Amino acid sequence: MDFALSPRVEDFQRRLKAFLVAHIYPNEALAEARIAEGNRWQAIPVIDELKQKARAEGLWNLWHHDPKIGAGLSNVEYATLCEAMGRSPIAPEVFNCSAPDTGNMELLWKYGTPAQKDRWLTPLLEGEIRSAYVMTEPDVASSDATNIAAEIKRDGNDFVINGRKWWISGVGHPRCRILIFMGKSVANAERHKQHTMVLIPMDTPGVEVVRPLPIFGYDDAPHGHCEMRFTNVRVPAENLILGEGRGFEIAQGRLGPGRIHHCMRAIGQAERALEAMVRRARTRVAFGKPLADQGVVRQAIADSRIEIDQARLLTLHAAYQIDTVGAKEARSEIAAIKVAVPAALLRVIDRAIEVHGAAGVSDDFGLGWSFAWARTLRIVDGPDAVHREAIAKLELRKYN
Amino acid sequence: MDFALSPRVEDFQRRLKAFLVAHIYPNEALAEARIAEGNRWQAIPVIDELKQKARAEGLWNLWHHDPKIGAGLSNVEYATLCEAMGRSPIAPEVFNCSAPDTGNMELLWKYGTPAQKDRWLTPLLEGEIRSAYVMTEPDVASSDATNIAAEIKRDGNDFVINGRKWWISGVGHPRCRILIFMGKSVANAERHKQHTMVLIPMDTPGVEVVRPLPIFGYDDAPHGHCEMRFTNVRVPAENLILGEGRGFEIAQGRLGPGRIHHCMRAIGQAERALEAMVRRARTRVAFGKPLADQGVVRQAIADSRIEIDQARLLTLHAAYQIDTVGAKEARSEIAAIKVAVPAALLRVIDRAIEVHGAAGVSDDFGLGWSFAWARTLRIVDGPDAVHREAIAKLELRKYN
Amino acid sequence: MDFALSPRVEDFQRRLKAFLVAHIYPNEALAEARIAEGNRWQAIPVIDELKQKARAEGLWNLWHHDPKIGAGLSNVEYATLCEAMGRSPIAPEVFNCSAPDTGNMELLWKYGTPAQKDRWLTPLLEGEIRSAYVMTEPDVASSDATNIAAEIKRDGNDFVINGRKWWISGVGHPRCRILIFMGKSVANAERHKQHTMVLIPMDTPGVEVVRPLPIFGYDDAPHGHCEMRFTNVRVPAENLILGEGRGFEIAQGRLGPGRIHHCMRAIGQAERALEAMVRRARTRVAFGKPLADQGVVRQAIADSRIEIDQARLLTLHAAYQIDTVGAKEARSEIAAIKVAVPAALLRVIDRAIEVHGAAGVSDDFGLGWSFAWARTLRIVDGPDAVHREAIAKLELRKYN
Amino acid sequence: MDFALSPRVEDFQRRLKAFLVAHIYPNEALAEARIAEGNRWQAIPVIDELKQKARAEGLWNLWHHDPKIGAGLSNVEYATLCEAMGRSPIAPEVFNCSAPDTGNMELLWKYGTPAQKDRWLTPLLEGEIRSAYVMTEPDVASSDATNIAAEIKRDGNDFVINGRKWWISGVGHPRCRILIFMGKSVANAERHKQHTMVLIPMDTPGVEVVRPLPIFGYDDAPHGHCEMRFTNVRVPAENLILGEGRGFEIAQGRLGPGRIHHCMRAIGQAERALEAMVRRARTRVAFGKPLADQGVVRQAIADSRIEIDQARLLTLHAAYQIDTVGAKEARSEIAAIKVAVPAALLRVIDRAIEVHGAAGVSDDFGLGWSFAWARTLRIVDGPDAVHREAIAKLELRKYN
Repeated sequence: MDFALSPRVEDFQRRLKAFLVAHIYPNEALAEARIAEGNRWQAIPVIDELKQKARAEGLWNLWHHDPKIGAGLSNVEYATLCEAMGRSPIAPEVFNCSAPDTGNMELLWKYGTPAQKDRWLTPLLEGEIRSAYVMTEPDVASSDATNIAAEIKRDGNDFVINGRKWWISGVGHPRCRILIFMGKSVANAERHKQHTMVLIPMDTPGVEVVRPLPIFGYDDAPHGHCEMRFTNVRVPAENLILGEGRGFEIAQGRLGPGRIHHCMRAIGQAERALEAMVRRARTRVAFGKPLADQGVVRQAIADSRIEIDQARLLTLHAAYQIDTVGAKEARSEIAAIKVAVPAALLRVIDRAIEVHGAAGVSDDFGLGWSFAWARTLRIVDGPDAVHREAIAKLELRKYN
Repeated sequence: MDFALSPRVEDFQRRLKAFLVAHIYPNEALAEARIAEGNRWQAIPVIDELKQKARAEGLWNLWHHDPKIGAGLSNVEYATLCEAMGRSPIAPEVFNCSAPDTGNMELLWKYGTPAQKDRWLTPLLEGEIRSAYVMTEPDVASSDATNIAAEIKRDGNDFVINGRKWWISGVGHPRCRILIFMGKSVANAERHKQHTMVLIPMDTPGVEVVRPLPIFGYDDAPHGHCEMRFTNVRVPAENLILGEGRGFEIAQGRLGPGRIHHCMRAIGQAERALEAMVRRARTRVAFGKPLADQGVVRQAIADSRIEIDQARLLTLHAAYQIDTVGAKEARSEIAAIKVAVPAALLRVIDRAIEVHGAAGVSDDFGLGWSFAWARTLRIVDGPDAVHREAIAKLELRKYN
Repeated sequence: MDFALSPRVEDFQRRLKAFLVAHIYPNEALAEARIAEGNRWQAIPVIDELKQKARAEGLWNLWHHDPKIGAGLSNVEYATLCEAMGRSPIAPEVFNCSAPDTGNMELLWKYGTPAQKDRWLTPLLEGEIRSAYVMTEPDVASSDATNIAAEIKRDGNDFVINGRKWWISGVGHPRCRILIFMGKSVANAERHKQHTMVLIPMDTPGVEVVRPLPIFGYDDAPHGHCEMRFTNVRVPAENLILGEGRGFEIAQGRLGPGRIHHCMRAIGQAERALEAMVRRARTRVAFGKPLADQGVVRQAIADSRIEIDQARLLTLHAAYQIDTVGAKEARSEIAAIKVAVPAALLRVIDRAIEVHGAAGVSDDFGLGWSFAWARTLRIVDGPDAVHREAIAKLELRKYN
Repeated sequence: MDFALSPRVEDFQRRLKAFLVAHIYPNEALAEARIAEGNRWQAIPVIDELKQKARAEGLWNLWHHDPKIGAGLSNVEYATLCEAMGRSPIAPEVFNCSAPDTGNMELLWKYGTPAQKDRWLTPLLEGEIRSAYVMTEPDVASSDATNIAAEIKRDGNDFVINGRKWWISGVGHPRCRILIFMGKSVANAERHKQHTMVLIPMDTPGVEVVRPLPIFGYDDAPHGHCEMRFTNVRVPAENLILGEGRGFEIAQGRLGPGRIHHCMRAIGQAERALEAMVRRARTRVAFGKPLADQGVVRQAIADSRIEIDQARLLTLHAAYQIDTVGAKEARSEIAAIKVAVPAALLRVIDRAIEVHGAAGVSDDFGLGWSFAWARTLRIVDGPDAVHREAIAKLELRKYN
């Protein structure tokens, strides 16, 4: 058992952290200010500049395990970079490592036809366009994805798509050009073989963004989480991914690594909240002594350190399982991090808020947004109950 | 020991609830839509109409214990009405029972000179103007209010005020006309006799609203929580409240009942979140059965019921203590509700969010805002640690 | 809403507390020492002496609401006395107010025939004999009491009883003379009409105590919680209580007030643990200052005060509901205290243990036993899940 | 980062688990029964037989990193064996791997003189005698070990020892022959250089075992946790360990690996409790379906799996830190497991108890004792607050 990183990963870590310090942190306020003024749904110039810089430094598509495309790292190795990127809400996009694009690129890379890859994967890898993953629906409990009801209907050489979707992240961005859409198409098949995925270009007639959905009070512009309507949207048959009725097969493959990324970024977020907590505690005086000298604050700091370390190790171990036995065999471990990590992050941020007083719930220290996102993350890909259920099922099988 | 309400209070309850059903709930969406469009910092017409209606029905200034002015209820009796009003974020203002105005009116009623009352209390009781309470500062840990550093300096027949303040709730409203300002004026007195309160009309030169502060992304327009700057603000000596160095004496008297009101409104909010949770659970189907039939959801519902009932009883008992032994003798009980009630509310809303899935963090069910406010309430008037400290001190004195 | 006690109850309170200080606390160690030596399953002489003294002072059968028999108090009034008695593990028996005898006496008083009352209720009220309630079985999940399988079979003018039971509290006491036994007798009736209760004198052939069952290492001698075997035990038909198939009807009536008593005693226990925590914190010095000056300890004290007060108010309110609308209508409130109060007690004792260090888990401060009992109380009358289920069912009915 | 075990460790794992299944589990009840009857403070014959067998199979002194003495494993490797041994309360002694003997042997191995090693280390390694570590005192808060007040006084060529000690684990065993005693001897030195360790043979005049101390209701015979009195106990100067005033230096070295062992055994205990929970859930039926099909029980199982895995990874990582940077540099990680692991274990056992109903608090499933021990473990080597304090101090230093 060896917890050390390879020299190559250590080098990436070092360069990534240096980039954060030199370029990302100093530009966070600028990026935010830019969003606050005027039309919120525009690309942010400073982000575009940073993307150029990151790419020039070879910090680009770090997520891809094929060294010809990305950093050529294992899941466990890339996970450690996700933590670093997670420290800033603007960082992942700068390195072309942000959700949902990485998952979508992975999906196209694994299941796309050469033509689909040419048309969509290439510009995504270049960071020229962005993408969205269209699954959740307002009218059904989508935590049970077999409930998904939007219709994908074969009509000659086309598919015709109808339905309402929501929580479509990233679709607010003006460069979002392609949607990966999951719907129901084979009603008479068994429950997990009824759903299909197709590619829908954003500019297809009938595709409509109804409204952005806020998380708590944040619209996350220009990325956004939106409600959409699809009305008689028509795409050619070659936009089918993998095959009709194979939607669940594709979705499974997409989720495992994606959860690792989300969770490791969450740990980066938690580390930054802990840093903020410590800094505030050292400088703020109440009742005659710095907060840092008060037992309850010290307890908050210690518990945060413990919980962050536990969350990180659990996630790295899950990544290791994906690397060694595969996402399917590792599904209990993957479900576990989905429950444990956002919960730990929420506790850490909550303590950071408390130590900051009212400033904590505002935007001045980024903690308000951080909490909102962490709470949302507890629900993304299904609420805790769904993942606990998956773990319990496997645990109960162990002893007959 | 008799937990029953008097017939008079029961009648108020009945009428208030009927008003909520008939006029408040149906107009919540309208009020919110009105804020969303155009200038967010304007009075909301539907609120003004509802105020007229409420006053016509005798549901006005319910908080005042003098029956000539308000409903003539004890703290424990009025508390039960606060719960009803707390069910809707727009309700308290409709009945002229919203913070910080009730606390400010109470303060003026108790400590104001006849001239101060004429000028400010009368229009506040009429609901014609609004007010703000200016205490917290960005540069010091205001949870220890002796840290407050803004300067109130005597200059001939005037006071000259300088300083930065923030989290000034209500100051965003265009009808906010008067500020009750706490600052330091007697630097050489003992720690709790250095601070003074003065009245500052909103239109005094040097009074400036710097920016609204969001809570988890919500600016709470048009009410708002703002940062302010006071630069050489000059008010006449007759704007002094009670006397120089008596700021803490006034602040103490203001806090007790105010916490009862906040906590009981929080309980109303919690009841509404529980109702939402139950309704969602009954209608949403996942994995082949309604959420309402799933053990974990049922546990969430049961725990919420238990925690709400405990929170309510603790608050009513604290109100009873204020009524019978006074706020000073009841300070442990008052501190206790400040810790326990927002915490319970947060747990209830969090469960409601979880049951709603992603819809829970949005604005569609009001749960996102409700959580943001509840988390903020944990900090308003000081973080938990301050109140626990007050309780512990008294508890430790019991056994020598 | 009036939280004050009547002068009569206040007088009982005063006398009871004086008795505790004068006679109970000073004899706790003696009682314990007496059990530790020799045969653990003997009556404890000092308890017998204290019983005489309590009776002489009119502090006897306080639980009974008929003033000819007991104190003539309502449930809410008696509840406040239970708290006082709960402060010492030896107190309730001294006042003839201990479980399971009070519940058994209540049951006989309500449902017993005149002959049954003469034979068993009278000596129980005199404190001459003790009794046990025989329900739980090792072979089935007794939290669902319809699972109870021990057989009560009519045979001419007799009933013949067979089966295994466990967790029969009080049966270890040498003066335990009468058992109230619940078993299955009407197999073809509907689920809640199959069970019957009969009286079984302890000395009936075929009645056998198999072994005492410890709770966390404590056998609770001489009271005890025992496993029993019933082999062809024969009792005359007149030992039937109320009627065949009416076991659940009887059990329901017994449970409501019993839970109030258990919970209020638990609150007395919690208060005593808090007192111990405070005393220890004031006298113990670590890292240069008394524990009482350390923030984490002060937090523990404050949280304990808050949780105890919430637990007490919830229980008193449930008692009030029993008094005013009856145990059936109050079943949600009764279920709520069963979940909330033992949980609060456990948290308080756990903190008291932590403040005591290793001494806390020993017998030197009574905290080890107190915790063991509190944890057991969470299971007595069914685990939390059963009670949460009952609450959820009622809550879900509120909104259709 | 590689979580795999070496083939050599895997082989130990396999053999150890086979031994547990073949010899340990089947003899647990026998060992317990043997203690229950007659004199509880005798060696248990079946344990002695199992020791022979384990030694014959090469499963002996596994803890020692020198392959000439033990298994020659790193801390992280041995940790995985501790988990296996932790599954049974009787296992560690069978492999001569039980506390406090391993820590004492380690101490003698590192700091003992050749004569001390000959006299005491050799028979300990052979498993012929046992030992105790004498530190904690009833009269001071020993969590701050500088409070330790028992006196070690130089008198010519002897040391004379006086003082009261308690929680001396293992001293109840008839083969306990040697004590490692920490006391104060250099009153005028700086705070961490006043304490000294000496070896005291158990049969030295003036050494007295006052009483066994129970944890909850368990005396843990024949091992025991005892109160001791030392009255003018005289030992020769050559019984000094390392040097006068060097007690803290020795104690530090002893604690790190010891906490790894305790925590990994705790994880084994937790795994066994989870197994019990699963088995019970599968076989017990309530309200018409197995507990295993009830959502709340499934949640309990899933949360236990998550928490155990987090606890294990945190501990293995701490062990890895000891192996790579040393116990001193790893003190935050070591403090973290001391807080996190017993807490996780307690939650897991508590859930297992709840699923077992009343049987859970009894001795029938070992859960009552397991909980008692886990709660005690939270205090052993200092309560949580002490360890959180150590973590917070280091965390606060990170950002200046």
